[in-house]
This record gives sequence, structure tokens and C-alpha cells, in this order.
Amino acid sequence: MRYKAIKLVKRPGQTITPDVFETVTLETPELTEGQILVKQTHMSLDPAMKGWMSEDRGSYIPPVELGEVMRSSGVAEVVESRNDAFAVGDRVVGMIGWTEYAVTDGAGLQKPPPGVSAEQILCVLALPGLTAYQGLMKIGRPKAGETLVVSGAAGSVGSIVGQIGKAEGLRVVGTAGSDEKCRWLEEDLGFDRAVNYKSGDLAKQIVEATPDGVDLYFENTGGTVQHIVFGRMNAHGRIIVCGMIADYTTNKPAPGPNWLNVIRKRLTIQGFTMPDHWDAVPEMTAKLAVYLKEGKLKYRAHVLHGLESSIEGINLLFTGGNTGKLMVGL
Amino acid sequence: MRYKAIKLVKRPGQTITPDVFETVTLETPELTEGQILVKQTHMSLDPAMKGWMSEDRGSYIPPVELGEVMRSSGVAEVVESRNDAFAVGDRVVGMIGWTEYAVTDGAGLQKPPPGVSAEQILCVLALPGLTAYQGLMKIGRPKAGETLVVSGAAGSVGSIVGQIGKAEGLRVVGTAGSDEKCRWLEEDLGFDRAVNYKSGDLAKQIVEATPDGVDLYFENTGGTVQHIVFGRMNAHGRIIVCGMIADYTTNKPAPGPNWLNVIRKRLTIQGFTMPDHWDAVPEMTAKLAVYLKEGKLKYRAHVLHGLESSIEGINLLFTGGNTGKLMVGL
Repeated sequence: MRYKAIKLVKRPGQTITPDVFETVTLETPELTEGQILVKQTHMSLDPAMKGWMSEDRGSYIPPVELGEVMRSSGVAEVVESRNDAFAVGDRVVGMIGWTEYAVTDGAGLQKPPPGVSAEQILCVLALPGLTAYQGLMKIGRPKAGETLVVSGAAGSVGSIVGQIGKAEGLRVVGTAGSDEKCRWLEEDLGFDRAVNYKSGDLAKQIVEATPDGVDLYFENTGGTVQHIVFGRMNAHGRIIVCGMIADYTTNKPAPGPNWLNVIRKRLTIQGFTMPDHWDAVPEMTAKLAVYLKEGKLKYRAHVLHGLESSIEGINLLFTGGNTGKLMVGL
Repeated sequence: MRYKAIKLVKRPGQTITPDVFETVTLETPELTEGQILVKQTHMSLDPAMKGWMSEDRGSYIPPVELGEVMRSSGVAEVVESRNDAFAVGDRVVGMIGWTEYAVTDGAGLQKPPPGVSAEQILCVLALPGLTAYQGLMKIGRPKAGETLVVSGAAGSVGSIVGQIGKAEGLRVVGTAGSDEKCRWLEEDLGFDRAVNYKSGDLAKQIVEATPDGVDLYFENTGGTVQHIVFGRMNAHGRIIVCGMIADYTTNKPAPGPNWLNVIRKRLTIQGFTMPDHWDAVPEMTAKLAVYLKEGKLKYRAHVLHGLESSIEGINLLFTGGNTGKLMVGL
């Protein structure tokens, strides 16, 4: 059977141009013992991909090699199996890549809980939800009544961080890049306040939104928001550094805040990435499934169609053009 | 009995000028039940005093009020007692202030272990040693074989941090501001490498001194060293932020490093100050006394003479002019 896959053939510059990818047509091989053939139905597009495409070998996972199929997580269905752990028709989640089909021995693939849609998996139970849970709950250790600020709050991770925060009794303030996103955060997701970082006096808005200062800052963006929130941190505040999307497409990252306030307020600033925490995935997935069942985690999916829509579509993540968790339906 | 004390009467600007202080002559009062009269013998001068003098009410302890005796820790002897917990002749350590005598109910005063000199107390067992131990051991959680960089390594805290690091099996690199200090660190204190941040190509020297990268950075200074070491941090590195002396005398603190590396390397940057950790003082003092007994903690005291020598002398801390832990012998 012939299928399409997309390889990374060039390192991107500041923006991801179509010529860094090459679509190839491949043929599914005869399975050997232990292998399965999966057909991907939904493929996730995530900001971290910019890092995976770059040459930076000092990063938390090795870059995608040139000539390799581009890396991504996705939901797939087993269509052929020579592995007793997987039956034809099983649904699996894992790092499948930019491809319509994949042959694998099943290592690293999870079977999602039944009764959950592919969109729910990619929007909540997979990377966005796991990242939100690990960062906020395990690193941030929030206490009910504390104030949480989330930057990039309308993003796939930020929107879940804020909702978990509300479920855990925090005052939640989010920043986002449009009035429409802010309305969604306040009206649909139950954020206490959402601030449009592109309009008005940002510092004034953030100060007004955090009358008791900030105990937890979940950082997805960097930029001006970072400096303002940093100056609002309360004693023993925790800053969880998850993303710096404002710096992913610049050659010269902007300076960070001076550390005097780290001493004065005895702050902890901690970075994390999910590959360090795979062991905890089953436990965290179970916790997220409970929030989901209780109706506490809403989401918006932004679904592109067809494998090759990813080539242009990935840039929506860096222009803020996506209106929900970005994914490709295959 | 008449004695001298020094009050803070003005907030300092960028430098601490003599006119911010006023020497007054006081008379010891009649003791009431529960009080003791102590005669201070050694008074500590510390960089944190700059912060205590400033108006910043958002800091970790309230500022010294104008008209109050300036705050400091010191060693004193009980010369009169109406408190059963203290006998005449007892030696005590605590926040006694810039004064020759003090009347107190004894709250917060510790009795140091016997057989330890006043210099050993102020150089090792009091604030410098406690700060070094708390920061390196409790916050940094070092593992033998890791590489530790200490900035301000010839300072009262930094020199103990490095020696505890050596006692715990770390590779220890320090930065200091003169060749003489660097020789002291390498030849007398056993640092693996000391780098003079004022001479030569600083980045090149730090890179050469840390061939396996940096696992722990104990920050006392800020400045260029911070940015260079930040870029050398290994995965899961810990940065302990204790002091930013380069910024204590500037109006406009220098920018810090961008946080992209916090994510890439999953770093933890944590600030601390000792007042949060008084509970642990007896336990930490005991640990420090063991290192001291084993000859693992060397120190240099820089002793000024007479209460009023503190007025000009405190600035030695900010010019790097002191040649050891700064204190006043009374």
C-alpha cells in the first residue's frame, strides 16, 4: 500500500518555510514478527517542533535528523498486527510522525481510555494536558487561594493550566493575544481575568488583575508579560518555565529579568520538558481523565485537513493564527 | 554606664556615605526581671546591610527604621543578668546591632559551642556558614563528582561554599576579583580552579575551568560571570541565588539571562535568605562545627577596630577592599 510522509530536509531559519520539508510516497513493507502497521487519524502540531527541527544538540531531545520523517505525536488505528499486544482496530497514541501510515514495534505507544475522542486525546490527554499537569501541579505545587498567572493562556497548554488552576481553587489570570481569545478564557473556561497583551497599558492591566500579587507564574511566552509578572511575584513564588514562544523565532533572545527579585522574594524559577517525566504519564493521564469526565477541561481544536496541510499550517503556532489546539486530520 | 551606639538616620543612595549614620552616647538602664545586659566583642559587617538600610518594604525583612540602631549580628558576653537562662560570663551570638552594649530579654540569642573563637563564630558558624550550608546543601542538593561554580568565591559566604563543596566531593571553581584572592582559593582553600574575573578573557577562562559544564552555580555577584556560567549549565542544573552584589550599588540592575536555557536544560533557579530558615540553625551549626573540627573550613577575618570604624568600613564590602570576612572588634 502506498502512503505519503513528510521528511525534514533542511534546517529552518527564523520562520519555517515549505522548502525545509519534502513529501515522499512510500510503500508499506511486509510486517515482520512483533511489528504493527498503524494508520494515523489525527496528528498534533506543537510549538516545540521548531526546536526539534533546529540543529541544537544541547536541547532536551536530539534534533530530527535531515532526511528523517518529521517528528510529531498523533492518534492512530492499528490496521495490521504481528504483535500480540496490539489487535487490529486498537487505537494508539504516540510519536508517530508526519506520515499517513507507520510501521512500529509498538514501543512507546499508549492505548488511550475508551470513550474519549481523538480531539480530546490530542487536546487534553496527550502532550498539552500532560505538560499542563506536570508543570502546574508537580512543579508549581499550588495551594487553594493562590494567584496563578498563565501566559499564552489561550494556547493548548495554557488553556488547560488555567482550567486545572480553577479546579484546584486558584485565582487564575491569563494573557492572550486578542479580545476574542480573552472572552473565551473568561466566559467559557472560567478564568477570573484575561488580559489582551496587545491592547492598552499591559502593566496596568496585569496589576489590576492581580491585586494580591502573583504566587505562581506559568510561562509559555516570554516577552513583556514575563517582566511585568516577574515584578508582581509574592514571597516564595514559583515560576514554571514551559515555553518561550516569543523567542522561538528570533535570532537574538530578549534579556530576562534581573535576579535581585529572586533573592528578595525567594523565588523558584524552574524549567521542565515532558520527556523527563514519561514515567508519570499513566498516573497523570488518569488524573486528567477525571477532570475531563467532570466537565472541568474544555478545549478548542483547530483541525487542518490532509497530511500536507501541516507544511504551511505549522506557522499558525508562531503567528498566533490558530484558534485552538492545532492538529491535522488525516 | 555610658556606651556608644550608631543609628541609621538617612537612607543611603548608591554608596553608603557617613552622613547616613549618627553616633550617640547612651546610658545602660536598670535591668528589669528577665533582662540581660550584654557587651559586644565582635560585630559582623555584611553585604545584606545595604538592603536593610534601604526603604524597600517588599524585601525579605523590614528595613531598619530611621532613628533605630543599625542592625547587625555579633558576639557578646553577658555582663549582668536578671534572666535564669543566662549567667554572667556566658557568650552569646545574635542580632545585637551597631552598639557596644545592649539590653535584651535574650530572645533570638544563641550560645555558641565552647572552644570556638569569636572570629570562628562570625566567619563560619554565624551568617556566612549558615548561608553557605543552607544554599549549597539544602537548596543545591549536590552529588559527589558534580561541578560547582561559586561567584564571589573569596567572600565570606563564597569561600565556605567552595570548601563545603570540596568536603562533599565536588569539582569546585570560584571567581574572585584579584590574583591574590585566586591564589588563596586554590592554594589555601583547595579550590580546583579560581578565575580572576577582572583579567583576561573571562568566558574562555570559565569554559576551560569547567570542561564538563556546570551542575551547580552558587550566585553571589551577578554581572558578566552570571551570563557566562548560565550558558555552561548542564541538564538539571541548579542555580542558587544568594547575592547580587554587582547590583547592590547600581540604580538600574543589569538584565538577566533569557530563560530559553531554563527550558532546554531544565534548570532550577532558586533564591533564598536565611531568615526563612532559622529553625534549622541548630542542626546546621552542628554540621558546620564538624567541618571546622576536621579542619575543612579555613577562613580569613578582616577585623576593624572600634565601633565607629564600621561607618567607613562597611564600604569595603562593595569595593572588594576587604581581605576576609569583615567584622569590627570592640
